[in-house]
Amino acid sequence: MSVFISGEEVEQHASRDSCWIIVHGKVFDVTDFLDEHPGGSKIILKYAGKDATEAYEPIHPPDAITSNLPTDKHLGAVDPNTITQVVREVTEADSRRAALVASRPPLDEVLNLHDFEAVARVVLPEKAWAYYSSASDDEITIRENRLAYQRVWFRPRVLRNVATVDWSTKILGQKSSLPVYISATALGKLGHPDGELNLTRAAGKHGVIQMIATLASCSFDEMVDAAVPDQQFFLQLYVNRDRDITKRYVQHAEKRGVKALFITVDAPQLGRREKDMRLKLVGDEATSEVQKGQAVPKDQGVARAISAFIDPSLCWEDIPWFQSITKMPIILKGVATAEDAILAYEAGVQGIVLSNHGGRQLDTARSGLEILTEVTAALRARGAFPSPAFDIFVDGGVRRASDVLKALALGAKAVGVGRPFIYAFSAYGQEGVEKAIQIFRDELEMNMRLLGVRTLDELRPEMVDASAIRSHVGSQPDDKLYQNTYQPLALAQFRTAKL
Amino acid sequence: MSVFISGEEVEQHASRDSCWIIVHGKVFDVTDFLDEHPGGSKIILKYAGKDATEAYEPIHPPDAITSNLPTDKHLGAVDPNTITQVVREVTEADSRRAALVASRPPLDEVLNLHDFEAVARVVLPEKAWAYYSSASDDEITIRENRLAYQRVWFRPRVLRNVATVDWSTKILGQKSSLPVYISATALGKLGHPDGELNLTRAAGKHGVIQMIATLASCSFDEMVDAAVPDQQFFLQLYVNRDRDITKRYVQHAEKRGVKALFITVDAPQLGRREKDMRLKLVGDEATSEVQKGQAVPKDQGVARAISAFIDPSLCWEDIPWFQSITKMPIILKGVATAEDAILAYEAGVQGIVLSNHGGRQLDTARSGLEILTEVTAALRARGAFPSPAFDIFVDGGVRRASDVLKALALGAKAVGVGRPFIYAFSAYGQEGVEKAIQIFRDELEMNMRLLGVRTLDELRPEMVDASAIRSHVGSQPDDKLYQNTYQPLALAQFRTAKL
Amino acid sequence: MSVFISGEEVEQHASRDSCWIIVHGKVFDVTDFLDEHPGGSKIILKYAGKDATEAYEPIHPPDAITSNLPTDKHLGAVDPNTITQVVREVTEADSRRAALVASRPPLDEVLNLHDFEAVARVVLPEKAWAYYSSASDDEITIRENRLAYQRVWFRPRVLRNVATVDWSTKILGQKSSLPVYISATALGKLGHPDGELNLTRAAGKHGVIQMIATLASCSFDEMVDAAVPDQQFFLQLYVNRDRDITKRYVQHAEKRGVKALFITVDAPQLGRREKDMRLKLVGDEATSEVQKGQAVPKDQGVARAISAFIDPSLCWEDIPWFQSITKMPIILKGVATAEDAILAYEAGVQGIVLSNHGGRQLDTARSGLEILTEVTAALRARGAFPSPAFDIFVDGGVRRASDVLKALALGAKAVGVGRPFIYAFSAYGQEGVEKAIQIFRDELEMNMRLLGVRTLDELRPEMVDASAIRSHVGSQPDDKLYQNTYQPLALAQFRTAKL
Amino acid sequence: MSVFISGEEVEQHASRDSCWIIVHGKVFDVTDFLDEHPGGSKIILKYAGKDATEAYEPIHPPDAITSNLPTDKHLGAVDPNTITQVVREVTEADSRRAALVASRPPLDEVLNLHDFEAVARVVLPEKAWAYYSSASDDEITIRENRLAYQRVWFRPRVLRNVATVDWSTKILGQKSSLPVYISATALGKLGHPDGELNLTRAAGKHGVIQMIATLASCSFDEMVDAAVPDQQFFLQLYVNRDRDITKRYVQHAEKRGVKALFITVDAPQLGRREKDMRLKLVGDEATSEVQKGQAVPKDQGVARAISAFIDPSLCWEDIPWFQSITKMPIILKGVATAEDAILAYEAGVQGIVLSNHGGRQLDTARSGLEILTEVTAALRARGAFPSPAFDIFVDGGVRRASDVLKALALGAKAVGVGRPFIYAFSAYGQEGVEKAIQIFRDELEMNMRLLGVRTLDELRPEMVDASAIRSHVGSQPDDKLYQNTYQPLALAQFRTAKL
Repeated sequence: MSVFISGEEVEQHASRDSCWIIVHGKVFDVTDFLDEHPGGSKIILKYAGKDATEAYEPIHPPDAITSNLPTDKHLGAVDPNTITQVVREVTEADSRRAALVASRPPLDEVLNLHDFEAVARVVLPEKAWAYYSSASDDEITIRENRLAYQRVWFRPRVLRNVATVDWSTKILGQKSSLPVYISATALGKLGHPDGELNLTRAAGKHGVIQMIATLASCSFDEMVDAAVPDQQFFLQLYVNRDRDITKRYVQHAEKRGVKALFITVDAPQLGRREKDMRLKLVGDEATSEVQKGQAVPKDQGVARAISAFIDPSLCWEDIPWFQSITKMPIILKGVATAEDAILAYEAGVQGIVLSNHGGRQLDTARSGLEILTEVTAALRARGAFPSPAFDIFVDGGVRRASDVLKALALGAKAVGVGRPFIYAFSAYGQEGVEKAIQIFRDELEMNMRLLGVRTLDELRPEMVDASAIRSHVGSQPDDKLYQNTYQPLALAQFRTAKL
Repeated sequence: MSVFISGEEVEQHASRDSCWIIVHGKVFDVTDFLDEHPGGSKIILKYAGKDATEAYEPIHPPDAITSNLPTDKHLGAVDPNTITQVVREVTEADSRRAALVASRPPLDEVLNLHDFEAVARVVLPEKAWAYYSSASDDEITIRENRLAYQRVWFRPRVLRNVATVDWSTKILGQKSSLPVYISATALGKLGHPDGELNLTRAAGKHGVIQMIATLASCSFDEMVDAAVPDQQFFLQLYVNRDRDITKRYVQHAEKRGVKALFITVDAPQLGRREKDMRLKLVGDEATSEVQKGQAVPKDQGVARAISAFIDPSLCWEDIPWFQSITKMPIILKGVATAEDAILAYEAGVQGIVLSNHGGRQLDTARSGLEILTEVTAALRARGAFPSPAFDIFVDGGVRRASDVLKALALGAKAVGVGRPFIYAFSAYGQEGVEKAIQIFRDELEMNMRLLGVRTLDELRPEMVDASAIRSHVGSQPDDKLYQNTYQPLALAQFRTAKL
Repeated sequence: MSVFISGEEVEQHASRDSCWIIVHGKVFDVTDFLDEHPGGSKIILKYAGKDATEAYEPIHPPDAITSNLPTDKHLGAVDPNTITQVVREVTEADSRRAALVASRPPLDEVLNLHDFEAVARVVLPEKAWAYYSSASDDEITIRENRLAYQRVWFRPRVLRNVATVDWSTKILGQKSSLPVYISATALGKLGHPDGELNLTRAAGKHGVIQMIATLASCSFDEMVDAAVPDQQFFLQLYVNRDRDITKRYVQHAEKRGVKALFITVDAPQLGRREKDMRLKLVGDEATSEVQKGQAVPKDQGVARAISAFIDPSLCWEDIPWFQSITKMPIILKGVATAEDAILAYEAGVQGIVLSNHGGRQLDTARSGLEILTEVTAALRARGAFPSPAFDIFVDGGVRRASDVLKALALGAKAVGVGRPFIYAFSAYGQEGVEKAIQIFRDELEMNMRLLGVRTLDELRPEMVDASAIRSHVGSQPDDKLYQNTYQPLALAQFRTAKL
Repeated sequence: MSVFISGEEVEQHASRDSCWIIVHGKVFDVTDFLDEHPGGSKIILKYAGKDATEAYEPIHPPDAITSNLPTDKHLGAVDPNTITQVVREVTEADSRRAALVASRPPLDEVLNLHDFEAVARVVLPEKAWAYYSSASDDEITIRENRLAYQRVWFRPRVLRNVATVDWSTKILGQKSSLPVYISATALGKLGHPDGELNLTRAAGKHGVIQMIATLASCSFDEMVDAAVPDQQFFLQLYVNRDRDITKRYVQHAEKRGVKALFITVDAPQLGRREKDMRLKLVGDEATSEVQKGQAVPKDQGVARAISAFIDPSLCWEDIPWFQSITKMPIILKGVATAEDAILAYEAGVQGIVLSNHGGRQLDTARSGLEILTEVTAALRARGAFPSPAFDIFVDGGVRRASDVLKALALGAKAVGVGRPFIYAFSAYGQEGVEKAIQIFRDELEMNMRLLGVRTLDELRPEMVDASAIRSHVGSQPDDKLYQNTYQPLALAQFRTAKL
């Protein structure tokens, strides 16, 4: 509608008093928004009067700017011939990273999911690694998530005819080639230019269900548009303070064929993830001024910057409203006690995900696998487990098909896997995700044979010894691969002194 | 009253036979006191005939010399124009320390309480670090204090409206902006020239209660004088062999408005803290003579030197006397068993602190958190818990707001925090203490939301799983930040040999 | 029968279209077999038209080629005068290894079984070490096998006359000088040119029973032919998809005097052993092509290459057939639960080996020692333990005579030891195996005296405290020798970059 | 009686056919004894025709040669003027050791018993350190001995008048200034030229009871002769195959006033101590010949060499004989189960030492402290505990007075301490032992006050929490001092290769 705005005009608005920026070829007046920007005003002012697309893209959902700014601040399209290209310098870090990418192990040397993490840790830009890998506080829960699986031991059966084994299943009525779904994770473009599309394409090719994240770097429609016929999606939802936005989002998803709604209930506020926060702070020149008496800056890492819209008042009383706006099955993601599992069951939702949000929320929260043993016992006591109308999922810490089989033996319908898939595409793009799926398949075939089960239905609680699940003591011997990939938290760094 | 004494005259008394020193502009005859000095005579003789103020100040309460010397040894004021200034050389260690201080991380990079410790460890003079950080024997208890919190896991509730959360409380009837009080710690001037005044000022500004220590470097009145209107204090008491001194001290405190009396009951003698003792000995030339057959020197570290006055005969029979001399609530600090908790309750005091004195007394004593579970069970069995007339506090090992919430869920009214605040002002002065308080606030807000509680009253025992509290096995995964800040004990050092 | 084929003629068939190779002086047409070769076609094509014996020998049983190729592809003997000798270059690795072998500790400095492993790790070619030492997935089970023994503590009796002690026994009716048999292990020529004959000769000399492995490098008859009079063997059996092959193999063994048949039941498919797989991949030039889009190669380590013939459909229904083809006692090797132990007992076999296949199959499977406590309890409850008709064996993780005594005290009849004997001959040939047997003797004498038992019959369950066997927590203090010999798993390696 | 033999004559007998040696100025014909020498013939032949005193002394009790050789082989005294002095070269190792001794920390920097060990480890000759510090097999028990104390936690009482505390006691009717006795240890001259006399002199000075060892380097009479008036001794007895020797030894001791007889019952054969054995072997040129096919040498470390006389047939039936030859109280040292404790009680002896021989015998035997909890329960059930006629002692792993108090609280009458006193005199001679005793005193005073007990009688089981004693899991946080002094076992060493 509007005529083109020239780049020269935009450049006039390069101050705190009048600040325009260009994103995806559109000009926006962000002057009034500067102080509301969850990531702080400083970073916007750096692009005042300029094209900010490249900086904007990896850490914002595509429609973040249009949905946050009033429409009268959408000034129109820029004349592409008139803008000065911001030539991004190739830094030494870029060159070093390129060399590392070139020397990464060939994909067929990746033997397990840990390998993806080991490669991603090296090839990812520091801030991307910090965002993906960080967890809250002392990162005890994220490590417990992994160790919990190793406190459960197998009781395998022998001399069963396991010539053919079948690990396909149905999840919430949808066919899945694996008892694993791709769990929602944010900001995929930090790790790869195609972002979450890597997941969509690999999932479509291999019959795996992807849970689309509210905070994905790719837009919802980009992902759904990339689907092959019969490819299915679930939707992960952070509930907005503005319920109309949420309603539109949910109903749009349902219309586009999404098959289930996973409402995140463990994140009224996003956790303090210190690896992420620390990186944001160190090396940022302006921060030293703070010591001189300024107010504490808002800037607390990517995670908290992008999540300001989440509604901390979300509660049980809101559930009927969700049931009124959609016919999709509703799953509550982040249930952590038997008490809340029972409330969920009584609220008439279709399932729960026992989760601690990948260790990114409340530290020293228990692992999903531990919660599973408590929840199945409590539901069983009420006649609500097993139940065809109420499914239990688990996520967090899964790195082996043997983990998946342990969760299923203990009552889970399927497990969610998040970070390993991000690391896979960060390191190898779509092929990495496909390889990760193939690793699950290979390991499932092997482990089902060794356990003596031909189909997932044959899994039984007595095939595992979970008696130590509550002990929280590292079941030794420990996991050498995990220990070599886990990066310990760092303390505050001295600037120059060699200690 | 007396006329000025000239510096020249003082200088005449520079031997073991007649030894005068100047402290804070006053001249004292310490000849007869030399052999009684808990820190040994050697250190005094170093200042014979000279101004000893700079050495005296950080490790003595201001009135130590006046209250320990008979008044006839108080010779009067020195003529300030006549004393030779002892010019303190700037040593290489001083320069190195100054460089380290200059390069310390900006305060806004401090993300958690561990960071203060990491910075303090580097910028503190070795002896100050040794005094603050040391604990008794094998330092097993000090480490257990931290680990005990990590054996308690959360059972968080979801879908509660946590839009607003409130972590303010009342402690012994006094308003507190946090369920945390600043616990008593000694010798603040070792870490910062303003000593404990850093605590007083920050506490006043942020509505936190400070417990004033008997062995503070700043005098009681200095601290109370620095209070803002409505700022409240508690008093920590080491009971003197001379009960008159104790009586005067307590009644003075009450008159000045102190709101509660915390009597330390776990220190009939101060513990052997070997880090502290070792540092005192190594590098001290004179010690090599000992090997030649001298008597063992009294010199056993700062802690034991300053505590000779404490009465080891203090016992339950003394409690009524305290109740007779003050109307302040009396709290016994250092109770370690259910048996003694019941005795305290029956003695009619107003509360107890479950504590092991920061791991500085009996090694392999249990953590306050562990004792808490035993004490609440025993009191509850007698109908004495919960009780508005008898409060339970816990201290030792608290580094996260999540620790505070665990202690409160298990029945504590508030928790005491000591070392983290010392490290905060040692590293950053008053601003450091303010930042530490702010960290507690941020973490409390976050963690209360994630736990599903809006006020501290909503905390319930079933929100934590404390079933492993007595196991004493490191709840793995462990605390990487803690492990990086904890300094292992060292063994005796060879003088020159490179081993 | 056939006349000699000339080397020149063989050299004409050096392509994928017509591929002949020479093995042990015979010419084979492997053209049609190329794509079926479990180790991939690439490795065969490297020897197309040439003598492949040296490469073939260490990783194939001698009759692998004759039994896998149809007889019309056996083209006849080559004229030995006409073949071009493939001169194997002495590589730098060979020279380095020779130097290491020369500097290995004299045999009398080997004090325990760990020492053999420490030496073997250094002197073995990398691939041999990888094949022998690797276990499945995260190698948790292989380490647990060792640690399980250390969670069982002794309750030794004193003041018993132990002037003479006797550790000889009978195993399945055969005399054995030790309560230990040499368990089946594959591919002995990887470690020493004489392969498993080292075991046979040492076993014969010292009255120990060897279990012959289906996948041995030496042929069954070579080993039996090397026996001394009265030397006894057991046979380990992987069941072939083609039961006729299995039948011939078993009946041949029985005819040659083998005394028991151990059917492996825990390996319907051989485990993923990533150390082995990783080594196969790294450094192999061709693999980099895979990244360019080729199909995933079959090549997954030696273990899986050589085991393609194993029948995954083997089941309980097959047991009567085995009973019909042999009169040898039948033992099921790899039972892992009380449930299956009972099934075995009811199936009328003569015993079971509680085993997890040396940690090489299902990871996080439990140790044989732990299973033993469950199995004896369950059998005892049915009146089936102790029973002269049904023996229980254990293998995995045994490194000390004290381990043997613990297993026997808990109900095992004897224990199987595998890797330590391989490491012994890899490091020192036959003399190494003899030394290993001598170490068992020395330690048995010592430990029986210290336990207060004169014969193995005097061992009692109450001589050990196995109450922690299910805890899976590393019984600390840990095993320093073991920790120094265990090689942690490695992650995928970057090609050139120094990280 | 005999005339002097000239050195020249002795030198004529310097071969295997006729081998004379000089020890302590006497000439012995050892030709027939060469093959019986427990330490092998090689070492004797090295001194054939020469004065062997210096090599003989530290590792033999003074009368070893006279009591082992028939009297007709005692050839008489050598003419001191005629023997060629064997000038011992000062080796580089000697010089290095002298430098280390000179630089050892002054004694007043030794703050705890661990410090002695840290110093001794550096200043002791390698073989002495190996002999003293080594334990059997994987050295699991020796480390468990220490850790067991740390699984017991204190429940200290407060507000008891502890102005004066008293840690003196009576042990088997004898006054002792400490609830600690010096336990028997062998070969004291390896560590210090005065050997066990360092213990005798320090014990006499400080009112501590020394248990004299059968295998001491100093003779029994040397030690008893060095006593001060009223100094008391116990006697440790290895029972000789020749009971007459034992009878004479015991009755001589009783006549000289020894107050109790401790019969070692856990050593029918001395354990394999691999640190000790390894050192004996490495660097010994002749051993390489063994590999060439010789018989295995007898040479298996100092411990086994000196203990060949011990009778492995000693049993319960022998007890009445001991009771018939002495009126001293008889204590069985090395009881390890409740069953044997009851047998001992029924046999009418006066007490038992719960011990695993300092971890030097059966590895994975349990700690004395753990056994104590089992034994007191079993005896109490029979009305035999507490009993004035039957005392229970514990040894192994004690390093702190707090350990002593834990053992006494759980029912021990006193504890034995061995290695720490050896390390003390190895590092500092008699003064070291005195300092060790003083450390016990200081720590006892401190810890009794902090526990709230004034006398040892006030110790109660409920003052400790021993509920984890059987868990065998390292009670974390662990013991940093201990970990820094414990030297891990080493594996066999390559000769030249740098690995």
